[in-house]
Amino acid sequence: MTNLEKQAALAKKAAAQLYMTSGDDRNRALMAMADALENNCPKILEANAVDMKNAEEKGTRQAMLDRLKLTEQRISDMAAAIRDIVKLEDPIGHTERAVKRPNGLVIAEKRVPLGVVGVIYEARPNVTADAAALAIKTANAAILRGGSEAINSNKKIVEVLNDAVIGAGMPEGAVSLVCDTDRKTAQEMMRLNGYIDVLIPRGGAGLIKTVIENATVPVIETGVGNCHTFIDKSADIDMAVKIAVNAKCSRPSVCNAMETLLVHKDIMAEFLTRLSEAMREYNVKFRACEQSISFLEGASPAAEEDYETEFLDYILAAKAVNGIGEAIEHIRKYSTGHSEAIVTNDYANSQKFTDEIDAAAVYVNASTRFTDGGCFGLGAEIGISTQKLHVRGPMGLKALTTIKYVISGNGQIR
Amino acid sequence: MTNLEKQAALAKKAAAQLYMTSGDDRNRALMAMADALENNCPKILEANAVDMKNAEEKGTRQAMLDRLKLTEQRISDMAAAIRDIVKLEDPIGHTERAVKRPNGLVIAEKRVPLGVVGVIYEARPNVTADAAALAIKTANAAILRGGSEAINSNKKIVEVLNDAVIGAGMPEGAVSLVCDTDRKTAQEMMRLNGYIDVLIPRGGAGLIKTVIENATVPVIETGVGNCHTFIDKSADIDMAVKIAVNAKCSRPSVCNAMETLLVHKDIMAEFLTRLSEAMREYNVKFRACEQSISFLEGASPAAEEDYETEFLDYILAAKAVNGIGEAIEHIRKYSTGHSEAIVTNDYANSQKFTDEIDAAAVYVNASTRFTDGGCFGLGAEIGISTQKLHVRGPMGLKALTTIKYVISGNGQIR
Repeated sequence: MTNLEKQAALAKKAAAQLYMTSGDDRNRALMAMADALENNCPKILEANAVDMKNAEEKGTRQAMLDRLKLTEQRISDMAAAIRDIVKLEDPIGHTERAVKRPNGLVIAEKRVPLGVVGVIYEARPNVTADAAALAIKTANAAILRGGSEAINSNKKIVEVLNDAVIGAGMPEGAVSLVCDTDRKTAQEMMRLNGYIDVLIPRGGAGLIKTVIENATVPVIETGVGNCHTFIDKSADIDMAVKIAVNAKCSRPSVCNAMETLLVHKDIMAEFLTRLSEAMREYNVKFRACEQSISFLEGASPAAEEDYETEFLDYILAAKAVNGIGEAIEHIRKYSTGHSEAIVTNDYANSQKFTDEIDAAAVYVNASTRFTDGGCFGLGAEIGISTQKLHVRGPMGLKALTTIKYVISGNGQIR
Repeated sequence: MTNLEKQAALAKKAAAQLYMTSGDDRNRALMAMADALENNCPKILEANAVDMKNAEEKGTRQAMLDRLKLTEQRISDMAAAIRDIVKLEDPIGHTERAVKRPNGLVIAEKRVPLGVVGVIYEARPNVTADAAALAIKTANAAILRGGSEAINSNKKIVEVLNDAVIGAGMPEGAVSLVCDTDRKTAQEMMRLNGYIDVLIPRGGAGLIKTVIENATVPVIETGVGNCHTFIDKSADIDMAVKIAVNAKCSRPSVCNAMETLLVHKDIMAEFLTRLSEAMREYNVKFRACEQSISFLEGASPAAEEDYETEFLDYILAAKAVNGIGEAIEHIRKYSTGHSEAIVTNDYANSQKFTDEIDAAAVYVNASTRFTDGGCFGLGAEIGISTQKLHVRGPMGLKALTTIKYVISGNGQIR
């Protein structure tokens, strides 16, 4: 057995024990985890300082350093996020449905934990606390594999959380970190069938692609969002400008931000001129098609790859279309199935768009930025699923659960 | 583009059009499919005769030949199965839940097709009609890849079904067969991300393992059932014998049949003696542990691998245990997560067993043979999922669907 297999076997054993704990027990463990993070703040910051120093020496770029950096405030936020998870309703153990069959068998669908949840993620050490807490809440064991750049921070956070979890009576192995951050160990983790029940990659498109191509354990694909907004001919121009600015500029680095704007050519002149003005303060760089380029300040010509790119930046691809048909066709070609929006005042077009676009979230007259567990009312969010199996769109606690059929009989045979 | 990619691209296009059809339209197409099978019975039997001849010449064993063989009756049964699917409630298009958020956004969860469903299967040509019908019912396109031994039968069946489907106004490409039955094409199919939304392997453990190890598209693992029945000390012996005989002997070749019997040592003598008598007429071969071997007629000693094997035959592994703890431990070690049963009259033990055993279906005082879409009241069954993601246990129509969030606003921004 490799070290990772031993760790996974311990996690599997812990998962079986976790399932026997009560929701109250697990909430107490979560409170202890939150307290422990705050009480051990100096130690965590010390470990994080080592990661920061290493990263700086390697010439890591500023955006990455920002994501890696912990502060007293950020550790407090991590603790607060855990306390928010405590407040959520516990999905485990509920009977979702029970039927009595004609032969007298009672068949109940009980909501149960998945078992062992693996998470492979990058940079942000807050994911460590977040994923551990979501797992404990839902009675799953978590095996966490963060990036090498955050290894010291992650080790300290897991040590602190683990002490709290075990102190609160949860089993050893309920939360563990994969300490080898080499590629080989990550690959091994992706193939731990029989131990890991689901693997969730959280990070950039490259990480997610690697996991999908290499994993033999079930995976939930998350997060890549090449999101579009189509401004139809009948759109309220004021509303359309407001929605487009929000979708692109309110937080361009996230997966639900707009990357390509499609606009009906009949209103292109007025709409794009006003949009260009409204986006000036954000210094948005436009990559526009031939028809639309003259209306967008400082725009450069769009190449094919601009329509394929999740910029995650103040960059917007733009394209004029002849109507909703062409808009739908474009979206079908380039969509990653995350969030797509239409701004329209035409009833038939609103129906056509929501029917024909195949994405986790399809919007009429609203910003794509709402695709989020909080905005959808799910409480915590583990990520945004862009696959169709198991869970689609923002993933709440239920995404970490499954069903077990419990059948009660009195001697039935078939 | 390879031939398979072209086929998949056509299926993807068909899937988009299928989603726009009504449930009535699709039911009409299903009725046409059923009629077409019956009307073209001689042609299908002719094609099947070629497969049978080839298989016989290769020296294929009798059980396999039986599965491959079509008759007028079997084709009628295929048609009848399709007509049964027509009667099932259409899950597509329903709003499962809709909430109005405080900001006025209405967020609706709509049930939609998965898109393109791939099925890789062996031998039985009836799976071809079955899978095609389940896909059409749920507005999915189907790409079917049967085994080389049934290629002529499958080609003819798909040709007949396809004519009916297109004649009923469904798009070209809605149902198609992968005509290359080589390994390379199967491997290519397992990696058609962007085209295939889910891949379902139906067949033996070897096929399923190959798909899990090689697929990069989402997979639903089906069917391998190393099922246990534990006869507790407090069991009603009459009931226990009846359940054990049914679980082993009513249809040993299926995945929900019992493979290992565990028995509390305190009742072993009486129970096993009576079981041995009751199983005599089925000529069951026993593989027993040292403690139990003397009570089972003609038993040979059980090796470790007997406890790991899905015999799918009149063979039963048996083991005496000290109590429920040891029974649960054994099941945890060898279970494939399909169906597990306890026969007991002890309340605490019934609870402990259903809580601690992690399987799709956990039974108290009933035969494992009930794990089946029909017995569970789901109508049609696509297979039995032994994974925890998306669907667990018998898969009904809903297993071929997913959710789309449709969000209606009036200018909301975040």
